[in-house]
Amino acid sequence: MPEYSTFESVVQVRPDDIDMNQHVHNSKYLDYVLTARYDQMARCYGMAMEEFLERGFSWVVKAAYIEHKRPLHIGDSAVIQTAVEEMKERQVKVGFQIRKQSDSKPVAKGWINYVMVNAANGRPQSIPDDIREKYSV
Amino acid sequence: MPEYSTFESVVQVRPDDIDMNQHVHNSKYLDYVLTARYDQMARCYGMAMEEFLERGFSWVVKAAYIEHKRPLHIGDSAVIQTAVEEMKERQVKVGFQIRKQSDSKPVAKGWINYVMVNAANGRPQSIPDDIREKYSV
Amino acid sequence: MPEYSTFESVVQVRPDDIDMNQHVHNSKYLDYVLTARYDQMARCYGMAMEEFLERGFSWVVKAAYIEHKRPLHIGDSAVIQTAVEEMKERQVKVGFQIRKQSDSKPVAKGWINYVMVNAANGRPQSIPDDIREKYSV
Amino acid sequence: MPEYSTFESVVQVRPDDIDMNQHVHNSKYLDYVLTARYDQMARCYGMAMEEFLERGFSWVVKAAYIEHKRPLHIGDSAVIQTAVEEMKERQVKVGFQIRKQSDSKPVAKGWINYVMVNAANGRPQSIPDDIREKYSV
Repeated sequence: MPEYSTFESVVQVRPDDIDMNQHVHNSKYLDYVLTARYDQMARCYGMAMEEFLERGFSWVVKAAYIEHKRPLHIGDSAVIQTAVEEMKERQVKVGFQIRKQSDSKPVAKGWINYVMVNAANGRPQSIPDDIREKYSV
Repeated sequence: MPEYSTFESVVQVRPDDIDMNQHVHNSKYLDYVLTARYDQMARCYGMAMEEFLERGFSWVVKAAYIEHKRPLHIGDSAVIQTAVEEMKERQVKVGFQIRKQSDSKPVAKGWINYVMVNAANGRPQSIPDDIREKYSV
Repeated sequence: MPEYSTFESVVQVRPDDIDMNQHVHNSKYLDYVLTARYDQMARCYGMAMEEFLERGFSWVVKAAYIEHKRPLHIGDSAVIQTAVEEMKERQVKVGFQIRKQSDSKPVAKGWINYVMVNAANGRPQSIPDDIREKYSV
Repeated sequence: MPEYSTFESVVQVRPDDIDMNQHVHNSKYLDYVLTARYDQMARCYGMAMEEFLERGFSWVVKAAYIEHKRPLHIGDSAVIQTAVEEMKERQVKVGFQIRKQSDSKPVAKGWINYVMVNAANGRPQSIPDDIREKYSV
């Protein structure tokens, strides 16, 4: 029974992330999670997105769910924890939790379902064994 | 048993929405839905976001779910259908469907749960009766 | 002495364009100009960006200047006028004016200098004669 | 004759900053400079943007000029140097240079002219003496 590691990245809130409600715009939290995953691909799974692209692969989002607890504001940083929750033939489901760095209070949580695609034509494809192995830490 | 209307808005894909996968960036679809809702607030529900803000109200996203079918590309326009699915004391759950304008093929679907807040302090508050009524079309 | 046409496009302000100052975020105006140019490439110059990309070309911004007069707000639409001001071996300088659709008041003006590049490697390249001709209307 | 300090901030490229040309989207560089200024307001000038907003002030961009040398890519970080170049009654002109962190090669340079405004109504106003002094380091 597989059990996968949880990794952590820090993302600084940028002024252009703030919307008319004076806090980070709702859809930006998904971009913070994406940023964390890219950081973790290189740093924690040993395969940077650049290498993916060089091999002709990319990841696209198939589905996403997010639940907001409290907003981030200008000057805050986000701590993003992610963990692979499930791996299928062509998909990886990644769970995430976002906290505010200064007080560790929960900001949002949810999951993103990524599909591996051929970068040239966007078609889904099987996750190669060596990549599957790297993601199984 | 309440049954609510479905409304439709068109949003043009902008070049800055396109990401490294040469299609509209995943989190932007939620922004398209938000754009459709703002348009429909004024045009279909008879209460523009400006009026909300003047009365000291705003809507923030409590939770969101999105499922992607096929991407939009540069030059495309999105047709976004939304409908209130459920209304609670402080929340409105809005279902959405995004289609590509040129061929009506499904692009994405899902729902967004909005909470009404006091615009000054961000605290959730009851949806006033007159607004509840306007949303009950 | 060459004299080039002025073309016009309309861009709707999206809620995700609004920043903490309750108006359209400053850098988004450059994205509106880009949107206008893409629209005009297909509609006015007879060569859509998709065709550019298929032929292996892309445009990148070499330099830009923008002067803000008054902001756009939620619910506004922008009318963007652009005109080629100068064409060189590899560059096109495009002047722009942004007005608010509802009252035609000036919002911003400036210019963007685009360089034609090879889409595969990003290297600048000479503008082919047939494209130069299409831009000379 | 006043001479102002140069300060430095680091901004990580996020995946959502990358556009169809596989590099950081042109208008995002202005957002990186804005991010650097916010960071430096708190860290270098001793007055965080939050304090500005609490006192009822905000900064808006009056004009901007940017010249691109080479793009940033996914995985890169930007080193942004800024310095006040000129201070007027209501405006501050800030020069900037963006370099790639890994090899210090120039990415872009330019300037941004900020106007101090009343955050409530957006009207320009004189820069208070104590703020002028803080910016005169």
